[in-house]
Amino acid sequence: MISFKNDYSEGALPIIMAALLQTNMEQTVGYGEDEYTKLGIETIKTAIKCDDCYVRLLVGGTQTNLLTIGHVLRPYEAVIAADSGHISMHEAGAIEATGHKVIELLTNGDGKLNVPSIKKAYELHKSDLHMAQPKMVYISNPTELGTLYSKAELESIYNYCQENNMYLYIDGARLASAIASPQNDIALEDYPKYCDLFYIGGTKCGLLFGEALVIINKKLSEGFFCSTKQRGATLAKGRLLGIQFAELFKENRYFEVGKHSNDMAFLIKDGVQKAGYKLFADSYTNQQFFIFPNEIIKELDKKYRYEFWCKLDDNHSVIRFVTSWATKKEDVEKLLTDLQNMNK
Amino acid sequence: MISFKNDYSEGALPIIMAALLQTNMEQTVGYGEDEYTKLGIETIKTAIKCDDCYVRLLVGGTQTNLLTIGHVLRPYEAVIAADSGHISMHEAGAIEATGHKVIELLTNGDGKLNVPSIKKAYELHKSDLHMAQPKMVYISNPTELGTLYSKAELESIYNYCQENNMYLYIDGARLASAIASPQNDIALEDYPKYCDLFYIGGTKCGLLFGEALVIINKKLSEGFFCSTKQRGATLAKGRLLGIQFAELFKENRYFEVGKHSNDMAFLIKDGVQKAGYKLFADSYTNQQFFIFPNEIIKELDKKYRYEFWCKLDDNHSVIRFVTSWATKKEDVEKLLTDLQNMNK
Amino acid sequence: MISFKNDYSEGALPIIMAALLQTNMEQTVGYGEDEYTKLGIETIKTAIKCDDCYVRLLVGGTQTNLLTIGHVLRPYEAVIAADSGHISMHEAGAIEATGHKVIELLTNGDGKLNVPSIKKAYELHKSDLHMAQPKMVYISNPTELGTLYSKAELESIYNYCQENNMYLYIDGARLASAIASPQNDIALEDYPKYCDLFYIGGTKCGLLFGEALVIINKKLSEGFFCSTKQRGATLAKGRLLGIQFAELFKENRYFEVGKHSNDMAFLIKDGVQKAGYKLFADSYTNQQFFIFPNEIIKELDKKYRYEFWCKLDDNHSVIRFVTSWATKKEDVEKLLTDLQNMNK
Amino acid sequence: MISFKNDYSEGALPIIMAALLQTNMEQTVGYGEDEYTKLGIETIKTAIKCDDCYVRLLVGGTQTNLLTIGHVLRPYEAVIAADSGHISMHEAGAIEATGHKVIELLTNGDGKLNVPSIKKAYELHKSDLHMAQPKMVYISNPTELGTLYSKAELESIYNYCQENNMYLYIDGARLASAIASPQNDIALEDYPKYCDLFYIGGTKCGLLFGEALVIINKKLSEGFFCSTKQRGATLAKGRLLGIQFAELFKENRYFEVGKHSNDMAFLIKDGVQKAGYKLFADSYTNQQFFIFPNEIIKELDKKYRYEFWCKLDDNHSVIRFVTSWATKKEDVEKLLTDLQNMNK
Repeated sequence: MISFKNDYSEGALPIIMAALLQTNMEQTVGYGEDEYTKLGIETIKTAIKCDDCYVRLLVGGTQTNLLTIGHVLRPYEAVIAADSGHISMHEAGAIEATGHKVIELLTNGDGKLNVPSIKKAYELHKSDLHMAQPKMVYISNPTELGTLYSKAELESIYNYCQENNMYLYIDGARLASAIASPQNDIALEDYPKYCDLFYIGGTKCGLLFGEALVIINKKLSEGFFCSTKQRGATLAKGRLLGIQFAELFKENRYFEVGKHSNDMAFLIKDGVQKAGYKLFADSYTNQQFFIFPNEIIKELDKKYRYEFWCKLDDNHSVIRFVTSWATKKEDVEKLLTDLQNMNK
Repeated sequence: MISFKNDYSEGALPIIMAALLQTNMEQTVGYGEDEYTKLGIETIKTAIKCDDCYVRLLVGGTQTNLLTIGHVLRPYEAVIAADSGHISMHEAGAIEATGHKVIELLTNGDGKLNVPSIKKAYELHKSDLHMAQPKMVYISNPTELGTLYSKAELESIYNYCQENNMYLYIDGARLASAIASPQNDIALEDYPKYCDLFYIGGTKCGLLFGEALVIINKKLSEGFFCSTKQRGATLAKGRLLGIQFAELFKENRYFEVGKHSNDMAFLIKDGVQKAGYKLFADSYTNQQFFIFPNEIIKELDKKYRYEFWCKLDDNHSVIRFVTSWATKKEDVEKLLTDLQNMNK
Repeated sequence: MISFKNDYSEGALPIIMAALLQTNMEQTVGYGEDEYTKLGIETIKTAIKCDDCYVRLLVGGTQTNLLTIGHVLRPYEAVIAADSGHISMHEAGAIEATGHKVIELLTNGDGKLNVPSIKKAYELHKSDLHMAQPKMVYISNPTELGTLYSKAELESIYNYCQENNMYLYIDGARLASAIASPQNDIALEDYPKYCDLFYIGGTKCGLLFGEALVIINKKLSEGFFCSTKQRGATLAKGRLLGIQFAELFKENRYFEVGKHSNDMAFLIKDGVQKAGYKLFADSYTNQQFFIFPNEIIKELDKKYRYEFWCKLDDNHSVIRFVTSWATKKEDVEKLLTDLQNMNK
Repeated sequence: MISFKNDYSEGALPIIMAALLQTNMEQTVGYGEDEYTKLGIETIKTAIKCDDCYVRLLVGGTQTNLLTIGHVLRPYEAVIAADSGHISMHEAGAIEATGHKVIELLTNGDGKLNVPSIKKAYELHKSDLHMAQPKMVYISNPTELGTLYSKAELESIYNYCQENNMYLYIDGARLASAIASPQNDIALEDYPKYCDLFYIGGTKCGLLFGEALVIINKKLSEGFFCSTKQRGATLAKGRLLGIQFAELFKENRYFEVGKHSNDMAFLIKDGVQKAGYKLFADSYTNQQFFIFPNEIIKELDKKYRYEFWCKLDDNHSVIRFVTSWATKKEDVEKLLTDLQNMNK
């Protein structure tokens, strides 16, 4: 079985494993107060070209989202998100469990919010104190459908948030893939300019685990460690996060991981289209969504793992392929050859 | 600097690191649905000699506690704990953040609950529906002060819980040290017999991270995965937990880690007493608490890391030394030699 | 100013005030343990022809909803509701503040759920444990738009819930108006047959305040008093609720209040249509929604209070008129005369 | 049966009932936006001689406490209270249900906090970010045991809070009794000077229901209405609160209610002592605690209602008598006569 199911099917980049091994017997203090954590944080600050911010290294994405949103919002405040957003759909009600409503907006099939959709929801809710009060906008880049925000789109959303006293929070679980995309015009160092908080995903970018939350709007960081502890999100051996992030951002690695993932995804995208199948979403990142006849899916099942996305009609379904730092070109080629053979 | 600050100062047992390295490039599905997680769980079930239970592998202790207690209790139900218990003192209000009161009981300086103290609190609260209703008793073995419950004590508490329709939950963050203690008469396989849920600590027992929650009272496991997801406690690369626990419970390792930790602790306990200092608590596990004059502490600070516990009087304080699988005998000897020299 | 803004503009039915006055100096025990509360509950049980149920008298609707939903659901469970439902829109995130997601469904402009829409949401969420798990369906009768469920519709939704192990909870804030509607085919005594829980609104039906929660599925009532206390929803002088409900359900009063409210509403509905304006929703209950040109609204503002519902286009808006037990026929006639004059 | 069980056994002061009756058919807007609510608030501001504050009228005490504390604290912040405090003991975990820990302090049997006890808890918790962070001190005046804070005590606690960046919140459920006490030296208009928030109880002071929350530290009032709605604490016919408070603070009524309650309580206190029984707490307010032999209690049970407080030893128990605006002198005299006869 070859898996294109997700970008966390393997362990970590070998260079990361080597760093963990090399430091294994060193003694450090716990809970992120150690030198490796400091190093990891400094490395990230350098990479994003922003020194005046607060960075915390966390284990997972849902953890980061619930912790951050729960920390930032006052009890009656809500967060606006796409209805396909991770916090809306795939976190088992984690944000609500911290007491906050997710105001879910319909999108045009691309998983993206825009100023008119945000404005409509914002104005509706602000017009009535009997409604939850929006205070944050949550977007992911890339989105759950692999689509990208342009710099202009991001800037307009951020400006709208600023003008209306809302925070903009960007979920960057797959940010490396966004940044390495040929369609992208937002550099890593642009993120601190266009949002209040964002996180840089590590789990889906070659770490064993790890997400780096960056709080630009520093007043939001007050008491953040306590929230981290309270949500069970402090890793005792916090250095494991520091070591990994320091390695990931050494040399050009972070960008190379994104590029390799995308290159493999584009090979699949081209090959699948050439084999005669249609895209469900036009993604320029490491998630690719295709419409397949069900009998082809049945064939694929014998040799490949992928994510079933949704039923389209009685004969067709949408499936998702995801690539990563670990995806082998030969596996992609096998897939495409098999697909061509199936199509005959 | 030599650290006796805690039992999570280093990375992982070399054999664990080797296993992670060896499996690094394998592809598995995520979130604990993989074969390694199954293996880890089976290994634990074998070790505790209990097949009919539900096991979930989690990352950290506070996470495990808040998730478990939040999952098991109904909204108005409370958990009874020692006032020195981890959930009472050192989890930043994590249990309360899930909506539940911790009913904190004074202890006799040993950090242990007993039936009379539980009964008193239980009866007070049950007598009045305007009070939070106790439904769970939480104990740690060993306690936060390194002390141990005897089998008879455990059994009496469990019986009281059973008779009064409460659950007994045991925090085993340092369970290996309890089990390896010369004072201990509770075997690992006894735990399933005397509680509804318990967890076996891995973080403080040579894993990079990991706690294995065991739910004996299986009705309590319904929907547990959803709670795990909702609290941000599912590790994407869940196999990392499976691999580590499978290794830890191979051969006699788990018990050896406990024994080595204790042996090193007892060396310190003997040596410090011989050097003329008093115990603050009479611990037979890997945490040792001593009363030192402040000027000795100042000297120690130059070469050693330990945990400051509390001020005792103007001239004396209590400090804690913790040992682990990684504690070197030569470091203990250095400490004791230094202490003897300081004392002259 | 004459107000058609809502059905809670005045105090209480004079007969209710008289009863409160008459019992004022009697001594009773607090928190709903008194004889008047028992009487109120028995009166309700008789009215709904269901003795084997649990009834609790509460002060307000949002309080009842958040308390009930928070009590019944386990932490990761969610409630399905119309996106225009009271819990979705007008409770400031009260359900989320108890930790639960409201899965909001689009409706066909009538504010009603139906089996296909519920089924679609149910199946989507149940297919993935990373999503909040639906366990309850919430509907209002009449809906927020004054529309009604038929008995067949209610039965089909209840059956679907039963088959899929979900609870059906009916918000009856304006139930009296539903029951008195000429379009209605669900009798008061039918409610216990077709849901797990429902509440009978008193605040909008001539009480000073008060909602009677009826739990048919009695296992859901376990510990309910404790939840009530914990949410701050126990009224010290609980008898005030008992006295009022006992009065409301004496003779035919409850039904008469509904009928008078509806009669006044239908006068308005007919008159407004005759004056040449269109309905926004075809309501057969005591809320009526009309489309008016903005200049007419400006004229109305001088003499009447109503609820602004939403902007329709640049020249038209939707406004809502609500009638109640206290609405005077002469006020309705004034309104209609004024409208006819404005229209000239 | 004559009841001395509590101060909410009857309805409301006749003058209050008259005011409710007189205004019954007037139309007002809902949820506290009406003129009567404004009047009630203005009347209170005048009575406390503080115009620059935010006042909200709420229905009940537990509701007020959970709403206020949940609104003011950030997620990881805790409130310090006496272990006998209402929020510690008698709110069924209501504060914890909003996510916050109550740090409960032992008191010297008088139910009062003091600076040393607060300081000790504050410093312990602030020294460790793994602990819940105290941000508020909660006291009641009078306390649950009927005891009073002196102005000097209050001032010292408030100063300590100010110096340490904590809020002081005073629960005044029975404030009228405190103010009317011969031992009291804190005037009503002193409260705004010595705390950040306090509430003036109405339920136990002759209203049908109602508590007036006063927020002096106005930054804490931001968004308060939304929290009120979110917790289900907005009364639709909000005017009922306004009308009642406006009446209560007319002329000297509020103080007279306190005085009458206390006078009746002191009659009981004197009489019981003369009959040869001991005080459990030396209260100068409307709650009186006595130690009685169990056989006397058995006799009392035949004719009187009171609150059983606690068992003292095998032969004695503590019971509480409470008086109110409605307590009749003849009932007190009957009680005392009966007690003297029992004692023979």
